[in-house]
Amino acid sequence: MGPTTITNATRPARFITVEGIEGAGKTSCLDYLAKLLRNQAIEAVLTREPGGTSLGEAVRALLLDHRFRGMAGDAETLLVFAARAQHLAEVIRPALAAGQWVVCDRFTDATYAYQGGGRALGATRVGLLEHWAQSELRPDRTLYLDVPVTVGLGRIASRGNLDRFESERQAFFERVRCVYLERCRAEPQRMRRIEADGSREAVHTQIAAALADLLNDGVETR
Amino acid sequence: MGPTTITNATRPARFITVEGIEGAGKTSCLDYLAKLLRNQAIEAVLTREPGGTSLGEAVRALLLDHRFRGMAGDAETLLVFAARAQHLAEVIRPALAAGQWVVCDRFTDATYAYQGGGRALGATRVGLLEHWAQSELRPDRTLYLDVPVTVGLGRIASRGNLDRFESERQAFFERVRCVYLERCRAEPQRMRRIEADGSREAVHTQIAAALADLLNDGVETR
Repeated sequence: MGPTTITNATRPARFITVEGIEGAGKTSCLDYLAKLLRNQAIEAVLTREPGGTSLGEAVRALLLDHRFRGMAGDAETLLVFAARAQHLAEVIRPALAAGQWVVCDRFTDATYAYQGGGRALGATRVGLLEHWAQSELRPDRTLYLDVPVTVGLGRIASRGNLDRFESERQAFFERVRCVYLERCRAEPQRMRRIEADGSREAVHTQIAAALADLLNDGVETR
Repeated sequence: MGPTTITNATRPARFITVEGIEGAGKTSCLDYLAKLLRNQAIEAVLTREPGGTSLGEAVRALLLDHRFRGMAGDAETLLVFAARAQHLAEVIRPALAAGQWVVCDRFTDATYAYQGGGRALGATRVGLLEHWAQSELRPDRTLYLDVPVTVGLGRIASRGNLDRFESERQAFFERVRCVYLERCRAEPQRMRRIEADGSREAVHTQIAAALADLLNDGVETR
């Protein structure tokens, strides 16, 4: 999946990321986000990680491949950041520099959660690579779609053909969720916890509220 | 190419790496090294980077692929270290722990030379990842096969189907060679410059001399 571009605006360019475990409802959230931005005539690049570039998608294929069941946590984390470095150079930084918003399905919070927590690498080692690859670049706002692990796994159970991550056990995802929740508590301004276990309307209302300040920023000055 | 194992010994396990630009004669050097160790009944794992594991070989294929001509230097460097992290976890550290010698066709000196120098990333950024991925592990001895860039490129010109690195221009390889020579000067005990532009016999004599202390170490105490 390559990045997709939508319409125009005069607000400052923003970098928005969407996070959550498998089955949290990211796809539906991203669809709603795209509609929200389109309605406000905001030009946006919709992209995803790992992926977003042809190299990144090739790396993603390695990451999800059951053939590499014995992948070391260090190797996995470096692959994630390799895909991210290409994504930053080729898509994210150029788009932001051109005044476009960037909406990314997963970013570095996922690395803290999946590799730092799930694979037990720890936040310090992830943080070193974050700084190496991103320098000071961080998302302006992150929507964390929170569901209990059993709910998320229940939703994906019917999908079949689960990838290398989706095939992990419940304890892995509990560690992942735990890191996501910690990060929401540590950075409440940037990272907003969305209760994603309710009705679609209730989730959309929370998403709109979590972005209201950014969507309104600069509107009066046009 | 997966790692290959040879015979036995009682000397301390050593980690030997062989470096050089394209056409420097690494293959012939590695063949001679294997014979040298076999003659002394030293059990050794012969391996290469990037590669040495199934994941590493898949990453190597991405690195050499002309499809990724626009690969960012950061992404390239992280991919190299991803392959290396897997290689360390799956092959190098277990072999050394089991008392086997490891002979590796290229290692982190190549990253300093190709990405740090060739791609102009700089030694500091490579050093951060070296420490992240390897902690304190470094080769015990490195043989740097030195040839003028024009000689090396002349030797590979007849090969045809040059990969993404082999297709680089002379100025790129001059920067690569420059870093290799700097590193030989900075760490003369570990990193030995072999004049690889002479006869096969002259090269072999230098290789044997550069490893003599390690090959003799522990022999008297048997």
